[in-house]
Amino acid sequence: MAEGEEVENKQVILKHYVRGSPKESDMEIRTGKTKLKLPEGSSGAIVVKNLYLSCDPYMRNRMSKVEGSYVESFTPGSPIVGYGVAEVLDSSHQNYKKGDLVWGMTTWEEYSVITSTEGLFKIQHTDVPLSYYTGILGMPGMTAYVGFFEVCSPKKGERVFISAASGAVGQLVGQIAKLFGCYVVGSAGSKEKVDLLKNKFGFDEAFNYKEEADLNVALKRYFPDGIDIYFENVGGKMLDAVLLNMTPYGRIAACGMISQYNLEQPEGVQNLFCLVTKQIRMEGFLVFDYYHLYPKFLEMILPQIKEGKITYVEDIAEGLENAPSALIGLFSGRNIGKQLVAVTRG
Amino acid sequence: MAEGEEVENKQVILKHYVRGSPKESDMEIRTGKTKLKLPEGSSGAIVVKNLYLSCDPYMRNRMSKVEGSYVESFTPGSPIVGYGVAEVLDSSHQNYKKGDLVWGMTTWEEYSVITSTEGLFKIQHTDVPLSYYTGILGMPGMTAYVGFFEVCSPKKGERVFISAASGAVGQLVGQIAKLFGCYVVGSAGSKEKVDLLKNKFGFDEAFNYKEEADLNVALKRYFPDGIDIYFENVGGKMLDAVLLNMTPYGRIAACGMISQYNLEQPEGVQNLFCLVTKQIRMEGFLVFDYYHLYPKFLEMILPQIKEGKITYVEDIAEGLENAPSALIGLFSGRNIGKQLVAVTRG
Repeated sequence: MAEGEEVENKQVILKHYVRGSPKESDMEIRTGKTKLKLPEGSSGAIVVKNLYLSCDPYMRNRMSKVEGSYVESFTPGSPIVGYGVAEVLDSSHQNYKKGDLVWGMTTWEEYSVITSTEGLFKIQHTDVPLSYYTGILGMPGMTAYVGFFEVCSPKKGERVFISAASGAVGQLVGQIAKLFGCYVVGSAGSKEKVDLLKNKFGFDEAFNYKEEADLNVALKRYFPDGIDIYFENVGGKMLDAVLLNMTPYGRIAACGMISQYNLEQPEGVQNLFCLVTKQIRMEGFLVFDYYHLYPKFLEMILPQIKEGKITYVEDIAEGLENAPSALIGLFSGRNIGKQLVAVTRG
Repeated sequence: MAEGEEVENKQVILKHYVRGSPKESDMEIRTGKTKLKLPEGSSGAIVVKNLYLSCDPYMRNRMSKVEGSYVESFTPGSPIVGYGVAEVLDSSHQNYKKGDLVWGMTTWEEYSVITSTEGLFKIQHTDVPLSYYTGILGMPGMTAYVGFFEVCSPKKGERVFISAASGAVGQLVGQIAKLFGCYVVGSAGSKEKVDLLKNKFGFDEAFNYKEEADLNVALKRYFPDGIDIYFENVGGKMLDAVLLNMTPYGRIAACGMISQYNLEQPEGVQNLFCLVTKQIRMEGFLVFDYYHLYPKFLEMILPQIKEGKITYVEDIAEGLENAPSALIGLFSGRNIGKQLVAVTRG
């Protein structure tokens, strides 16, 4: 391909801000043009070919018009941005060269020019599936790691409950908690996911929250002596039931509240007085503060993956055309495991 | 009075478990008999004359039948128990002698035999009002101190909001936060209380929450740059509004939620997702865990009181007959400052 030649560039565009549940029709596929070479005189930028794009629950917030939030809203009419794995095609940045693989913030399109490279990580280990860098070896993996070890202050033998437990983050939290020596129970939204939790990820117990008439009763069944640590991914009614079942000095790592993201008015949580009576610490966290721990995390997790002690289930949508459907599927729990999009398999 | 002679002993009896708002008629005054001398062969016990009894919001929970709570329910048909200041009349305990003054758990009656003395503190400093040991120098004072310094992790210059700010705990939190170098705003439920906060306790600002149509707007007025620390005494709608106004990495010390205690069904709190997006730590605490810090607390607070740098407002009901009314007045906010009962002024 000649230098400066334009190529077609398929993109996933957010058509407008979303209220309530996002639909496929809130997005559209558009084909633009881009150059695969940086212009003369460029510096500090790279051109990448996007290989895998990550569908993450936090992206729901970016689809709405929000002010003063922890993440910026997407721009209607422009492509969606998110985590991905990409190959460097051209570089005017001293740290990157053609052929490098990176993960970090990119754009939902075939090719991207990245001028803010601060949030990128160069991929050093390629003897694992590259797609893992959208999941277990990327942002969700780090989220599980720091949420559990840095926020939950776990002790061996403690009883850990994880909601949305088969998701990108939950499946790893459960496995590292088990390896650490905890009793681990997860909830998920289908029989298939519950089977995964018990049979593939080695959770001690798991249940389908949709089949439980009373979440409080369900939790008491699996935690007759209470929950020491709750890794919170869903919010709402589950949080209310968990609060009733926490032990004194319990810890709640508030990672996400996916059950609430599409509601115009969030559900009210009624049992917060339990925080006082049980001296519970509930702490929200964002992974962005902890990326300095990434090398330590890799050192821990890579051998576990290679030795088969930790496994990871992905749900891969093929092609950008299927990206909108993959993203909105997160909110109905359609995905089994980490949802991502393979932009190209070539 | 001859040894072993019986005297009349007025008591405040809880007639039955309470649901919803407690009423004076849930309690009754009964006059029994007691001896002011311990029987021969007694050991480890004391007989006390109760001087001051403390009315504290947590007592509401003890008036209901609750199981597995952090405090035991009161026993219907028996007198109420609570914090108080008392004088030792007789002792078979090596640490106490006649004439000693103590504060700690006692019973709502004129004279009590205390056989569990573990929770008692001997009063060493009597150059301050004795009644202060039900408030600023007792459980509420320690609650303010440990809640602020141990739970809130304050830094000089931070912006602190306190609800129920003229109450037994709130008025002290505000004053120590000011002395520590924070910007301090409190909410209370009447003009008189707001005046106290601003003019007597030296809060930077204060407002009457009952006169605010929108608590979110009110908080934005006093905290245009957000709240770093929230000392939570009320729960419910105020907590929801505060969550919207917290700064990133804010801390919420959950001390109590008095607005919820009389509700059959607590109000739902909707804005908990703010915990995630702002990386807020919300932590419940009970003062019981921190009593080892009491000597350190006294060392800090006594000079401040004597030098007039910290002041304390009490609302004193005279006589056991007025104790039921004083206790239930807490829940409508009738008291101005720390509510207590002077059993006797003789």
